[in-house]
Amino acid sequence: MIISELRVTPIAFRDPPLLNADGVHEPHVLRAVIELVTDGPGGGVTGLGECTGHAWQLDWLELIATRIRGMSAYDTGALARLVSELLAGRADGVDYGPDANWRRWSGRTPGSRGPAPVPAPAFDAMRVYSAIEVACLDAQGRRAGVPVVDLLGGRVRDAVPYAGYLFYKWAGHPGSGDDEWGAALDPDGIVAQAERMVDHYGFRSLKLKGGVFPPDEEIAAVRALRAAFPGLPLRIDPNAAWTLTTALAAVRELEGVLEYLEDPVAGVDDMAAVAAATSIPLATNMCVTSLEGVRPALERDAVRIVLGDHHIWGGLRASVALGDVCRAVGWGLSMHSNSHLGISLAAMTHAAAATPGLGHACDTHYPWNAAEDVVLPGALSFQDGSVRVPDGPGLGVQLDRTVLDRLHATYLSLGREHRDDKAYRRSVTP
Amino acid sequence: MIISELRVTPIAFRDPPLLNADGVHEPHVLRAVIELVTDGPGGGVTGLGECTGHAWQLDWLELIATRIRGMSAYDTGALARLVSELLAGRADGVDYGPDANWRRWSGRTPGSRGPAPVPAPAFDAMRVYSAIEVACLDAQGRRAGVPVVDLLGGRVRDAVPYAGYLFYKWAGHPGSGDDEWGAALDPDGIVAQAERMVDHYGFRSLKLKGGVFPPDEEIAAVRALRAAFPGLPLRIDPNAAWTLTTALAAVRELEGVLEYLEDPVAGVDDMAAVAAATSIPLATNMCVTSLEGVRPALERDAVRIVLGDHHIWGGLRASVALGDVCRAVGWGLSMHSNSHLGISLAAMTHAAAATPGLGHACDTHYPWNAAEDVVLPGALSFQDGSVRVPDGPGLGVQLDRTVLDRLHATYLSLGREHRDDKAYRRSVTP
Ligand SMILES: [Mg+2]
Ligand SMILES: [Mg+2]
Repeated sequence: MIISELRVTPIAFRDPPLLNADGVHEPHVLRAVIELVTDGPGGGVTGLGECTGHAWQLDWLELIATRIRGMSAYDTGALARLVSELLAGRADGVDYGPDANWRRWSGRTPGSRGPAPVPAPAFDAMRVYSAIEVACLDAQGRRAGVPVVDLLGGRVRDAVPYAGYLFYKWAGHPGSGDDEWGAALDPDGIVAQAERMVDHYGFRSLKLKGGVFPPDEEIAAVRALRAAFPGLPLRIDPNAAWTLTTALAAVRELEGVLEYLEDPVAGVDDMAAVAAATSIPLATNMCVTSLEGVRPALERDAVRIVLGDHHIWGGLRASVALGDVCRAVGWGLSMHSNSHLGISLAAMTHAAAATPGLGHACDTHYPWNAAEDVVLPGALSFQDGSVRVPDGPGLGVQLDRTVLDRLHATYLSLGREHRDDKAYRRSVTP
Repeated sequence: MIISELRVTPIAFRDPPLLNADGVHEPHVLRAVIELVTDGPGGGVTGLGECTGHAWQLDWLELIATRIRGMSAYDTGALARLVSELLAGRADGVDYGPDANWRRWSGRTPGSRGPAPVPAPAFDAMRVYSAIEVACLDAQGRRAGVPVVDLLGGRVRDAVPYAGYLFYKWAGHPGSGDDEWGAALDPDGIVAQAERMVDHYGFRSLKLKGGVFPPDEEIAAVRALRAAFPGLPLRIDPNAAWTLTTALAAVRELEGVLEYLEDPVAGVDDMAAVAAATSIPLATNMCVTSLEGVRPALERDAVRIVLGDHHIWGGLRASVALGDVCRAVGWGLSMHSNSHLGISLAAMTHAAAATPGLGHACDTHYPWNAAEDVVLPGALSFQDGSVRVPDGPGLGVQLDRTVLDRLHATYLSLGREHRDDKAYRRSVTP
């Protein structure tokens, strides 16, 4: 199964004005679809992947695309090495150094696609490799006629529970009228949004993205959710926007109310201080983002639950292995999400279905973006808040090329290459 | 790739009289070869596995063989579930309880094949499943035409370093004359054995199985090895035969001499006490034998290095994931061995080649048993102490059916169903 082409298609799809600690989601999410085209006896197959559409990630993927032809889609070891070496500034035996690589290889004038990527080779390499690994596993599964979950150790569940991901939001993007979800700027708005989410998708856990309004308003929203949905586990994620003092006050208010509190504060020290003051389990996708971050957090007892994410942790295999890591250190495991479409939802579902220790409903932004999905309908749907592992081979989803072309045209028309929630919010409310 | 048959062939192969803390290796090792026969388009393939030949393990495998037909060799999740459920006493929706299962299902009079297995479902299930998982991965690799290492995340090394595994030994089994290795009962004998090992295989690390003679004699042997092989990392493994007092005295003697000290004492408490008294890293395959054992050992700082073993930790995928666990908690990773043949050597090599954090040469008994290997020559060889990952598909080894038949006949002729180093030693030196 020899790789003949790595196709990277940047896309942009509509996104509601979701508020977070940084700012507000812009009208379009930038993302990229990966197609890994392979040859093989009996005809080739194409594996799919999906990742963020930041210019730095596109640049790396396009560089890798120039060097990947002829490699095996089974030899993910060699592919991981290629990615690491290119991102560390090495190619063809020459060491250019991490600062030089992007300019030298991209063939672009620095700045033509925004600033050169910040050199953080190991961390970035995991993100870049992940998109390729998913496409390789999709291709392997398609070729063998088996679902990706089987390539990850096999399923421990047939359906993966997701949490309804609630956001404070404006009624619509300025100048565009109200969207179908309407405004959610207070407890009533959040409860109404949750009701809609639960009605549509059947979610049995709810998460509120916090860090937007003064903590007491957000605590009031959590309490309103608690009253409206007495049986559902609740989480709030202020994305480390709270000060330690605020967080210590907040946990006193929230004792007994939450399934977990996600990243109330930044860094191991402050997380540990909050953890010591409450029985609420602290969860994180900010304080532990790599294997190297586990031990420091463990030693300080700073967290109880880690949110994995195959896009960040180096792929689907690494995500499943993270389940073993958490089991070994006695932590729970949940799953983080960024805005995404169906290829990533399928990948997340396969990984989660293969991970025994995943004991919390996974995050997903999918309800906010599903209307413009690049995969053909039918393979992915929510029942009682869960997504069944698709039956088809590989990831079990098919690309809708018409939609892909349209979303790529949107991307080109925007002329935008980076996500900047902060600037967008300032442009609206200076 | 549908399973049509699981063939379990118990075998016995010659073994020298190797001394350990329990006693001495009997003249034959009991082991089993697994053949997982599959159908599929274009003809089926057969995957190989290898495991211990203890009666309890054979019984479970034979029971599983009656129920595995028709399952997919890709669906290791369902296979793991089948194994767990049977070992926990459940079948066809009926819960027989862990005590009842073996007698009810084996169709044997209790005791006809030795005592019923001690019910330890979860631990045993990992051992039983492992043999099946290896055979599944071999079949998957053969079918796809790729080496097993690629199914485990891909190779991070092309060849896997092993350590020369030195044993105190008698000159030969009583009544059988001297074997080719001769006696090793003192420092000179151990050094001579090491020279032979290094000459033949090129090992660049050496391990002495200790716990046999008074510690000062074994320390003298280590010192003799240090003098004879100044550049080679050295380990000694008394298999927890030392008292805490002995171990504390021993580490004072061994400071600066060892790469690591393996299981000087039993249990987390005593290991922690030794660890606190020395700069020598402590390693273990006894104190941490499952993910659940990690945190207690970590909290006490009882070990620095874990020896994985796919036969014990639940297969090749779990072994590779153990590398992530060790990286996360800041431990080193090495690999444990029991007496084995080429199928297991190939499996160990594929797993080790896919595990980035494996920073120590792996253990192997292979030199002691290679003369009667069940795999055809050519695929596995040592160069500078390392085994190259076989190039062929799957594990890359082929079964030598003539040898298999002969070793099975030996097994049947022995009428022995358990390993008992202690009884054998007593029968010779009461
Ligand atoms: Mg978060
Ligand atoms: Mg040992």
